[in-house]
Amino acid sequence: MNARRPRVIIVGAGFGGLFAAKTLNNKAVDVLLIDRHNYHTFTPLLYQVATSALDPSEIAYPIRSIFRGSSNVDVLLGDLTDINPEKQTISVRTNGDERTEAYDYLILATGSEVRYFGDKSIREHAFELRNLPDTTRLRNHLLRRFEEASWEPDADKRHALTTIVVVGGGPTGLETAGAVHELFNDVLAREFEDSDLQARVVLVEASPDLLKPYPENLRQAALEQLQSLGVEVVLSNPVVAVSDDEVTLGDGMKIPTKTFIWSAGVKASPVVEMLDVDVSENGRVFISPTTEVIGHEHIYAVGDMAYLENEQGDDYPMMIPPAQQQGQLAAKNILADIAGKAQNNFKYIDRGIMATIGRSRAVAWLYNRIPLRGFIAWVVWLIFHLMTLIGFRNRLNVLINWAWYYFTYDRSVRIILESPKEKD
Amino acid sequence: MNARRPRVIIVGAGFGGLFAAKTLNNKAVDVLLIDRHNYHTFTPLLYQVATSALDPSEIAYPIRSIFRGSSNVDVLLGDLTDINPEKQTISVRTNGDERTEAYDYLILATGSEVRYFGDKSIREHAFELRNLPDTTRLRNHLLRRFEEASWEPDADKRHALTTIVVVGGGPTGLETAGAVHELFNDVLAREFEDSDLQARVVLVEASPDLLKPYPENLRQAALEQLQSLGVEVVLSNPVVAVSDDEVTLGDGMKIPTKTFIWSAGVKASPVVEMLDVDVSENGRVFISPTTEVIGHEHIYAVGDMAYLENEQGDDYPMMIPPAQQQGQLAAKNILADIAGKAQNNFKYIDRGIMATIGRSRAVAWLYNRIPLRGFIAWVVWLIFHLMTLIGFRNRLNVLINWAWYYFTYDRSVRIILESPKEKD
Repeated sequence: MNARRPRVIIVGAGFGGLFAAKTLNNKAVDVLLIDRHNYHTFTPLLYQVATSALDPSEIAYPIRSIFRGSSNVDVLLGDLTDINPEKQTISVRTNGDERTEAYDYLILATGSEVRYFGDKSIREHAFELRNLPDTTRLRNHLLRRFEEASWEPDADKRHALTTIVVVGGGPTGLETAGAVHELFNDVLAREFEDSDLQARVVLVEASPDLLKPYPENLRQAALEQLQSLGVEVVLSNPVVAVSDDEVTLGDGMKIPTKTFIWSAGVKASPVVEMLDVDVSENGRVFISPTTEVIGHEHIYAVGDMAYLENEQGDDYPMMIPPAQQQGQLAAKNILADIAGKAQNNFKYIDRGIMATIGRSRAVAWLYNRIPLRGFIAWVVWLIFHLMTLIGFRNRLNVLINWAWYYFTYDRSVRIILESPKEKD
Repeated sequence: MNARRPRVIIVGAGFGGLFAAKTLNNKAVDVLLIDRHNYHTFTPLLYQVATSALDPSEIAYPIRSIFRGSSNVDVLLGDLTDINPEKQTISVRTNGDERTEAYDYLILATGSEVRYFGDKSIREHAFELRNLPDTTRLRNHLLRRFEEASWEPDADKRHALTTIVVVGGGPTGLETAGAVHELFNDVLAREFEDSDLQARVVLVEASPDLLKPYPENLRQAALEQLQSLGVEVVLSNPVVAVSDDEVTLGDGMKIPTKTFIWSAGVKASPVVEMLDVDVSENGRVFISPTTEVIGHEHIYAVGDMAYLENEQGDDYPMMIPPAQQQGQLAAKNILADIAGKAQNNFKYIDRGIMATIGRSRAVAWLYNRIPLRGFIAWVVWLIFHLMTLIGFRNRLNVLINWAWYYFTYDRSVRIILESPKEKD
C-alpha cells in the first residue's frame, strides 16, 4: 500500500495544462503543475483588458484556488529551464534558485509566442496581446496617448497620438481593432470634447482576406461590420517597417501612429527547443495521435506547441479547443498507461469558431455548418464567453461590467496603473 | 459678454482637490485639475487591494469620468514642478515636457507622504500603503512569499516568509494587520495544506496606545479584537533597524521577516516647499481660517498639506473629512472673492472615526459620542465605505466581492501581476 504513486509534471497552466491537471485531479497520481504566473488567463478576453472594459483579475484565476481541496495537485511558480529525458527530470528557475524535479510522466503545455515577419523594427515597436502584463501595458499606453493628445497643439502630432494600427486579420486583430475604436469613440467623444480629437483605427492584413477559416459570406460580413464601425481595413498589404512615429506598408502607404499592435502570427513556445527533436515550420513539436512527443518516452505535448495532423492532412489549429481536448487526452492516456491499458488517439470535436467586432457585431460559424452574423452572433458570443469563464464571481463581475458598458458606454476600468518593480 | 472667466487651477485629485473641483463644476470659472494619476483613489480601502480582496479599479475612478459632461473642468496629467506666485503661474512636467499654466486662483491639495523616523534602513525596506502602484506591489510581494514559503525546506526561513511586521497603531496599521492575518489564514490553511505554513502578523507601535484619538474603552476593544484574531501586538517599542531578513525593536526583540509595512507617520507633500514660507513641524503650510496660504495671495491649500488650528488650539487631523470640507470651502471662498463677497471661515463637521479589524470586527466613535464595537461597528463601517465609493458600478462590484469573500473566504483577486515598463 505504500508504493510510490507515479508523478506527473505538467508545465503550463493555460488551457491545455489546466485541463490535463483537472483530469488528473484526485486520481492515483501525484501532480505538479508549473507556471510562470500564479493564475490561469482567459486569453480570449485579453483585448477587453487592453481596452479598459474588464479588470485583469476578471480574466485571471489563481491556480491554487482552482485546485483548492485537491488531494494530489501541487503548484510551483517558475520558468522551465531544462528537460532531461534520460534522467526523467526537469529544471525550474524559481525565486532566483534552480530546482530539479523528477517525473514519471511529463506533459508539456507551454503554448505559443508571437511570431514576427520582416524588418526587426516591427518587433521593436510592437505591442502584443498574449498575457496580462503585456495587455495592461497596452492599456496604460493607450490611455496616456489620449491624455497627451488632448494637450498637443500640433494637429498632425495630435492625430498620430489617436491613431492605432492593428496588424493581423484573425479574430484577435478584428476584436482588438473593433474594441479600440469603440474605446476611442466612447471616451474621446464624451470626455475630450474641446480637444478636436479624432480616432483612427487601421486594421492591416498582408493577405487578401480577413478571418481565413470562415466561409466567404461571413468574411464579407466581418469586413462590412468593421467598416460600419469606422475601422479602416487595409488588405493585401504587409507592414514593412515601423518607427517611433509611423508604420510603413508594402505599397508605400505611411500611417503616422504611436501605437502598433501585432497579432499577425504565432509560433510554438521555445520550450520545444529543449527536446532536441525536429520541429514543424512554426516550431511545433511532432506528436503521435496519443499526444506523445515523437522521439521521447513518457513525454506528452499538447496545444499550440504540438503538431498533429487530422485525417485530411491538416494540422489542428493553434486555438483553445484542441489544446483543452489534447490536455484531457494526454492525462487520460497517462492513466491508461499506468493501468497497463491501451492509449487512445486524438479525435477533435469541433464546435465552430466565432469572432466579435465591437458592440452588437460578430460573426460565428458553428459546427462548421451554421453561419451567424450581427446581433445574434454577438449574443451567442457573449453567452459562450460568459459561461466559459472560470468561477461564479468572475462571471457576475464581468456580466455587470459588460451590462454597465452596454447601457452607459462608460469604460469603467480606465486607470493608468503602472506597478513599480518588486522590492526584492 | 466675452470677458475672460477667472481660471482656477487645482493641484491634486485626492479628496480635497476633488471636492474643490466638484464645487466649482459648471460655475462661472475655468477649472484645471492636475494630478499625476488619471484616477481618484479611494485610499481608505487600499489595504484591501494589498490583501487581494478588491481590484485596483474598484477603488480608483477615472477623473475625466467624474467630470464627464462638465462645461468648465479640464484635466491635466502631470507633476507639479514649480509655483510662481508673482506671475501667478505654475509649471507641470507632463509626458517629458514642462508646461506653464496661468491661474487667477490656485488650490493646492497634494496631500501627504510617508514620514520615517529613525534609522535609514527602515525607509529602505518599508512597504507603504499610500497609492495604488505601491499597494499592488505589496500584493504581488505577499503572494510571492506564500509561493516561496511552500517550497522552502528550512523551517526558520519558511516561517520568516510568512511573517509580516506592520508598524503603526493607527487605523491603517490595524486594518492592514487584520486583513493580512485573514489573508494568510484563509489562503494558507486551505491551499498550502501540505506545507506546514504558519502565519505570524506582528503589529508594532512605539507609543503605549493603539488608536490614540479613541476613548480608552474602544482602544482596549480594538486591542482585544486584534488579539482574538491572532495578531501579535507589541506596544511601547519602536522599530530601530530593518534588514533583508529581520526587524529589530527598541528592546532588542528581533522578528525574522521579509515583509515590513510602515504606516507610522505622515508629513505634508513636498509641494509645500515650493511656496517658500514657514511650515509646521510635519511640513504643513499654515493657512488662514478661509484656507488661504498665509503669506501668499490667491493661493489656497487644503487637507493634509495645510495646517489650521481649531478653537481649542489643536490642528485638524490629517484625514479625509477635513480635506473634503476644506476643499469645498476653498472653492466657495474663491467664488465669493470673485463676486466681491466676504469669505467664510472653516467650521469642521466631525462625524466621528472608525477602524475595522478584519471580518466582523471594528470600532467606531460616532460624533465623538457614540461608541460602537464588534459586529455592529463592522456593519456600520461596511455600509459607510460602500456608500462613499464613487459610482454605482464600483459599489456593486465591491459589494459582490465582499459578499463573496464573506461567505466563501475566497480572496478572489489573488493574482501576481507585474506590469513591465511602459514602451515609451
